[in-house]
Amino acid sequence: MAVTPSTRPHRLLPLFLGLFQGALLLFFALFVTYDDPPVQAEDANLMANHLYSIFPFFQDIQVMLVVGLGLLLTFLPRYGFSALTHNFLLLNFAMQWALVLQGLLRLLQHGQVHLDLHSLLIAEFAAVTVLISVGAVLGRTSPCQLLLVAACEVPAYLASEWTIITHLGVLDVGGTITIHVFSCYFGLGLSKALFGAARQQMHPKETPSHRSDFLSLVGTFILWVFWPSFVAVLCQPGDAQHRAILNTLLAMSASAVTTVVVSSLLDKDGKLSPGHLQNGSLAGGVAIGAVADMAMPPVAALALGSLSAMACVLGFRFLTPFLARKLVLQDQCGIHNLHGLPGIVGGAASAVVIAVASDGASRSHLSQLALVKGNGSEVPGGLGGGRGVGRQALYQAAGLAVAVGASLLSGLLTGTALRLPCLARPPEQLCFEDSLYFKIQDEAESPGPAGTAEEGALALKERV
Amino acid sequence: MAVTPSTRPHRLLPLFLGLFQGALLLFFALFVTYDDPPVQAEDANLMANHLYSIFPFFQDIQVMLVVGLGLLLTFLPRYGFSALTHNFLLLNFAMQWALVLQGLLRLLQHGQVHLDLHSLLIAEFAAVTVLISVGAVLGRTSPCQLLLVAACEVPAYLASEWTIITHLGVLDVGGTITIHVFSCYFGLGLSKALFGAARQQMHPKETPSHRSDFLSLVGTFILWVFWPSFVAVLCQPGDAQHRAILNTLLAMSASAVTTVVVSSLLDKDGKLSPGHLQNGSLAGGVAIGAVADMAMPPVAALALGSLSAMACVLGFRFLTPFLARKLVLQDQCGIHNLHGLPGIVGGAASAVVIAVASDGASRSHLSQLALVKGNGSEVPGGLGGGRGVGRQALYQAAGLAVAVGASLLSGLLTGTALRLPCLARPPEQLCFEDSLYFKIQDEAESPGPAGTAEEGALALKERV
Amino acid sequence: MAVTPSTRPHRLLPLFLGLFQGALLLFFALFVTYDDPPVQAEDANLMANHLYSIFPFFQDIQVMLVVGLGLLLTFLPRYGFSALTHNFLLLNFAMQWALVLQGLLRLLQHGQVHLDLHSLLIAEFAAVTVLISVGAVLGRTSPCQLLLVAACEVPAYLASEWTIITHLGVLDVGGTITIHVFSCYFGLGLSKALFGAARQQMHPKETPSHRSDFLSLVGTFILWVFWPSFVAVLCQPGDAQHRAILNTLLAMSASAVTTVVVSSLLDKDGKLSPGHLQNGSLAGGVAIGAVADMAMPPVAALALGSLSAMACVLGFRFLTPFLARKLVLQDQCGIHNLHGLPGIVGGAASAVVIAVASDGASRSHLSQLALVKGNGSEVPGGLGGGRGVGRQALYQAAGLAVAVGASLLSGLLTGTALRLPCLARPPEQLCFEDSLYFKIQDEAESPGPAGTAEEGALALKERV
Repeated sequence: MAVTPSTRPHRLLPLFLGLFQGALLLFFALFVTYDDPPVQAEDANLMANHLYSIFPFFQDIQVMLVVGLGLLLTFLPRYGFSALTHNFLLLNFAMQWALVLQGLLRLLQHGQVHLDLHSLLIAEFAAVTVLISVGAVLGRTSPCQLLLVAACEVPAYLASEWTIITHLGVLDVGGTITIHVFSCYFGLGLSKALFGAARQQMHPKETPSHRSDFLSLVGTFILWVFWPSFVAVLCQPGDAQHRAILNTLLAMSASAVTTVVVSSLLDKDGKLSPGHLQNGSLAGGVAIGAVADMAMPPVAALALGSLSAMACVLGFRFLTPFLARKLVLQDQCGIHNLHGLPGIVGGAASAVVIAVASDGASRSHLSQLALVKGNGSEVPGGLGGGRGVGRQALYQAAGLAVAVGASLLSGLLTGTALRLPCLARPPEQLCFEDSLYFKIQDEAESPGPAGTAEEGALALKERV
Repeated sequence: MAVTPSTRPHRLLPLFLGLFQGALLLFFALFVTYDDPPVQAEDANLMANHLYSIFPFFQDIQVMLVVGLGLLLTFLPRYGFSALTHNFLLLNFAMQWALVLQGLLRLLQHGQVHLDLHSLLIAEFAAVTVLISVGAVLGRTSPCQLLLVAACEVPAYLASEWTIITHLGVLDVGGTITIHVFSCYFGLGLSKALFGAARQQMHPKETPSHRSDFLSLVGTFILWVFWPSFVAVLCQPGDAQHRAILNTLLAMSASAVTTVVVSSLLDKDGKLSPGHLQNGSLAGGVAIGAVADMAMPPVAALALGSLSAMACVLGFRFLTPFLARKLVLQDQCGIHNLHGLPGIVGGAASAVVIAVASDGASRSHLSQLALVKGNGSEVPGGLGGGRGVGRQALYQAAGLAVAVGASLLSGLLTGTALRLPCLARPPEQLCFEDSLYFKIQDEAESPGPAGTAEEGALALKERV
Repeated sequence: MAVTPSTRPHRLLPLFLGLFQGALLLFFALFVTYDDPPVQAEDANLMANHLYSIFPFFQDIQVMLVVGLGLLLTFLPRYGFSALTHNFLLLNFAMQWALVLQGLLRLLQHGQVHLDLHSLLIAEFAAVTVLISVGAVLGRTSPCQLLLVAACEVPAYLASEWTIITHLGVLDVGGTITIHVFSCYFGLGLSKALFGAARQQMHPKETPSHRSDFLSLVGTFILWVFWPSFVAVLCQPGDAQHRAILNTLLAMSASAVTTVVVSSLLDKDGKLSPGHLQNGSLAGGVAIGAVADMAMPPVAALALGSLSAMACVLGFRFLTPFLARKLVLQDQCGIHNLHGLPGIVGGAASAVVIAVASDGASRSHLSQLALVKGNGSEVPGGLGGGRGVGRQALYQAAGLAVAVGASLLSGLLTGTALRLPCLARPPEQLCFEDSLYFKIQDEAESPGPAGTAEEGALALKERV
């Protein structure tokens, strides 16, 4: 199949996005309303307090996704603009698409769709899975392909999340299993189906520069700082939420230190790898999600943070080259090391913590969690309905298996669809290159200050 | 008139700023106090809760203005330091000046001035208008000129805001009309009067580089994330504030996607313009301010976001070149596209939404708004006082007209004052150049690593 | 003593950090638990509200330390990665170490250790002192040396803080005396003992570049924005916290403007120094901490902000060169100007404010403060116990003296320990150089785009 010209996808991009915006407007016009304002003064007061309890968390998560993750993805020196912008576009598109799908479900169930900050948050979580998954194919995919990924992954995520949380009653307040594990294996399936058995040559533009690595590390630190909000936003206010924040802080602090230890040990000169720092520091946040609000001692959070950082750094050093060699698996950002391995560690830990928690206090606490967790859905046959602690541990493992299976399958299917020539994958020599998608000055190609100036003047005239 | 030497304005700058700081200290020493601490325990509790309900919003707005807007303005590659610092200096100076002017008013009315976080917030909003307006003349003005702009614009804004909100009873919780429209036309008037009919040549340093465009986009995203706080901070807590946040989120999300659609359609290769992304993504936030807390369906927020992003991007492509050609109008940052057009779209939308809202629930809601909006001033003859819905729509349009007229007039007058030679506009060849105002290493001029080092050593010695 | 080979410290770093992580896990496993969940519903509600009142402040402080301070320290153009990462590592290590030390104390007192967000916050404050102190020796120290600094400074800080706050009953809600003054003189003692009388040559890599200065200024602005949270987080909710926020905002605003005035006056061309802006803008925040919640008129905050910014900028211009010449004192980041001088100004101001506050209202207010301040410890013989206002002013001065004396002494001892050859101070020619500690592409040394690409490909292969 010949390489498709690089200009074609752009004709499809505005067409597709434009049509989607139209459909979104139509759907909202027909079906979506806000809640009625409360009539009673006390209700209004309650609502105000509820808003203040969720909005700061929501803003923190927005910063993480738009600025933190956006910057983290800019480690490719000539692809920073694309990484930042595609991340932003995908977040918005996937969130809108998740709102539509959620809305359709509610329409079928209740005949009407009320929008509130909580529904936007749930839609944002669906979008997160897309942002993580496309990390596996960063730089070698067109915006059209990315939008198709979002179009396919959001419904797959919603179905998987329903199965795991609502149907199986799995406890996963921070999305370790439902978000991180799911999006990782979706992304790997995607990459495998898209690139097939063709071994990708190392691309000359694939190497981070000092500067791009630096900004990427700033992105990591923004994510690191706000991660507790991501894990704790859906917890029950009060004790559970307090514990979720503390556990996340402890896990991430242990991750930070352990990453330095392991990365330093792996190098013969004891030097640290930027890639290890950018990812390992966050591994604890990925792993802690499934157990953050459980009644476990603080040492468990520290141990989980250390363990997952180890898994992440060792994954970069040994597993990624192995997978690339044996399975011809392409994973540009190393999502398997940041989301896959720590996610599995965290999911397994949730089963262990539950199995170990056999005393009465913990059991009652777990059942309390099962009733109020996450999206507020009731758990049929969950702990609240009399499920034993041992059985709940099995359900946690089952949830992990469902997440891996469902994501691999849907990822492979989506990746196959991405091979459609009309989506125009960028030609190899234009991969990792902002100038394919943006009207920007390419500094590396500019002949010098004088040349830049004149060309620039022309470019700007055209630009605005 | 000969070009004034570039070193002179700096003699005036510390003199003027120093005198102002002295006057500020004197005014505060004589007249300004804090509120007395509450005597009752319940009152203390209420005050604490009130603080928690406003402080996170306030911090978000500070991040927007100092970091987000600061970075957005750094798209000129050799003017980043100046853009960031002048924005910071103007914010502080204009806020202090607004505090003095507000204080004088209260002194006349009540005989005393009590300072609280709310008055700082209102002063900050006054400062925002200055930060927006100077975007029209970015890079071609000296710090002294910018301070004079602030000195003139703050009282003009306060008068205009009083007329529009307090006198006319216009509803504009997010400052669409009072802040964005006002500051845009003030800036355009300023630019016209300052540069007159002299057509500015495209300056060689005016072209964004890959890197400067990148950091500017990061600034946009910081603004994008925190914009809901800007719109909702002055809303009535509870339902109205919740709705304002949701409407802003929807409008900005629609803006983001629509900007990509329109920018891509406008280029023959389908490439995106950084300038469109940097501005269009925020257009929805500008437009939604006037209607954010009104009882309108969510689809209206989406539509408004899309529409204003369209207006913004089309403005960059067609209107800016047209105005530059026909009116010889200089608008460096394109504030007409980001604040003017979306502001007018939003102001018009507020009239339409009010006119359409003819059912009882909405009317009572509107009147409720009119009583509690913005700076808490009572509205003589407003909706609360029995004004009809149809008449209120007319008042919204009148408010828009007042904002445009007052700002153009005061902007033109201020721009004329800026021509005073003692303010020393930078000579053309030193425009867009950090080294005129800062003791920094100019990388482009440094002869190389070796040379840099020695010169640098000297520079640092001098520096500290 | 010969220069130790540069690769040795790295063998010690993971060993030391790894052992510490193991000890931390052991300590947590044996002794640390979370609070029991509240049994009563009202208690749960109270706890939730308490969380919402502290968590946003806590997040702001995390952003300040990880992102803001991290970026501020990156003004050395080839040392950005190290500055950012070492700051991050030190924060985590010092916080964990402070948790252990605090835990040991509580274990001795109460037989058990309950962990909550408040204890993490107190531990974070201990870590802040380390982050400030190492600024004096930035770029000339190995990570092992920095860890040893943290190991020594945290217990010294805890002892000094206990003496000043708990024993002497000094009022210092924002840490002016206990954190800023202490960490400054600790750092200067450290630097003096480490470098001795050897006059350091100006190093060729020591000069900030346009870009590194720019990112450093962004870091300053992030600190500037969130500083009120740092000062006010431990205040009593309600009136005192409100006043602390307002005083900090006023002081920092005055600092910003005054810095521009003084920096401009000091240069013959009126140009601003980036170093002055990066530090002077924050001086007001340092100084206001000791008096932020006191019942003083707003003008005092403005005056303190102006005064401390003046001290800071004049310190850079005159005192730093003087100390370098006379005392052969090395202070890489100018911590004496940002933390020492404004800290002393603020500490002295606290004595003055208390001495001046002789009317009954203020005295009752002060005593109220003394009972509830900071870490909630009771003040034996404090104002609450009948200490007179005049005596309290003396105690403030005594606190300042204790902070200076204790920090100088412990800093000198720590600096002497840092001379141990096994800690392997970097050799002079590799100071200020990221490539000593990180596997990164050195742009300045890369031969060009073509060469970079191939080398890069190899580097990346090795890297992951």
